Amino acid sequence: MAKKVYLAGPEVFLPNAREMLDRKAALAREAGLIPLSPGDLEIPPTNSKRERAAAISAVDEKMMFEADAIIANLTPFRGIAADTGTSFELGFMCALDKPVFAYTNVARDHTARIIDHFNGAVTPDAEGHLRDPDGLSIENFGLIDNLMLHAGIERRGGSVVIGNAAADALYTDLTAFKECLAIAAERLREG
Amino acid sequence: MAKKVYLAGPEVFLPNAREMLDRKAALAREAGLIPLSPGDLEIPPTNSKRERAAAISAVDEKMMFEADAIIANLTPFRGIAADTGTSFELGFMCALDKPVFAYTNVARDHTARIIDHFNGAVTPDAEGHLRDPDGLSIENFGLIDNLMLHAGIERRGGSVVIGNAAADALYTDLTAFKECLAIAAERLREG
Repeated sequence: MAKKVYLAGPEVFLPNAREMLDRKAALAREAGLIPLSPGDLEIPPTNSKRERAAAISAVDEKMMFEADAIIANLTPFRGIAADTGTSFELGFMCALDKPVFAYTNVARDHTARIIDHFNGAVTPDAEGHLRDPDGLSIENFGLIDNLMLHAGIERRGGSVVIGNAAADALYTDLTAFKECLAIAAERLREG
Repeated sequence: MAKKVYLAGPEVFLPNAREMLDRKAALAREAGLIPLSPGDLEIPPTNSKRERAAAISAVDEKMMFEADAIIANLTPFRGIAADTGTSFELGFMCALDKPVFAYTNVARDHTARIIDHFNGAVTPDAEGHLRDPDGLSIENFGLIDNLMLHAGIERRGGSVVIGNAAADALYTDLTAFKECLAIAAERLREG
């Protein structure tokens, strides 16, 4: 039976959200998987903003419980790190012990992006750990984001695919997604 | 028997990380709980950066499996949103169906912080949804961060405490943590 994969990522915020979710879903189906996309766009009317937020949360969590695996788009979103909602969802699926896969469309790693953010104004402390101008330490493990995300995936045998999209196609270039999808589809067939 | 609480947050990155983790742990013990703090500072030497990242991930996940609950510090970190590692951990504990609590030291909500980030250059689209200058939609639910985090906590009966720390005490002011801890301690006694 075809496996279900939850397609997490910030696509729901795009001007062409429906199109992008549909393109990713179509590619997942072509790979022999059943796509489950975040339900943000399909929530019936509610009586308040808070009720709407709760309804989306409930739908998305239900899909994650149903899904056999997750592919998380960890491309930095409005800043130097992954979308916090996607980070939450990746942790959620790791805790459920389901196969986890992720990709990013930014080739510069977590450390390099933080250094860029501070225009290079980072310095090693007495123990050699990089620190930002506020003295906060900078993770320097060669990972795409906070270690809980990247190492959490790799420790489970999942894969992290690193793409390198053009700046104006950061959320629409599907090259890394396709590569990640192919890996996920193969693993899920084996499993 | 005393309940164990995992104290998630970006404190591990502070110049005075040990001191802050110890202060939070001492307060948790005073509240009758057993604190479990992220193990980043207590990892034995490894052969590579990647091995070290994996070791920290393993220790922190083990603590979460052992913990009865989580208190997550969702104060924005290096940008307008919560630390991605903490977001991952909150999702992890939600999936394990353990009691979840969170706080932030920034009173301005998710929407207000995004608007600030773009210096007010956001506009409603045809359907009235706020969009940033790149056309990306802006969540506007009156929440402290992405809805998956905030609504995920409240849907489980957890609490989100909103503090308002001085800019130079964003990661050291423990007022909101203490309030959140008191709520968590009472709930965990009842439960």
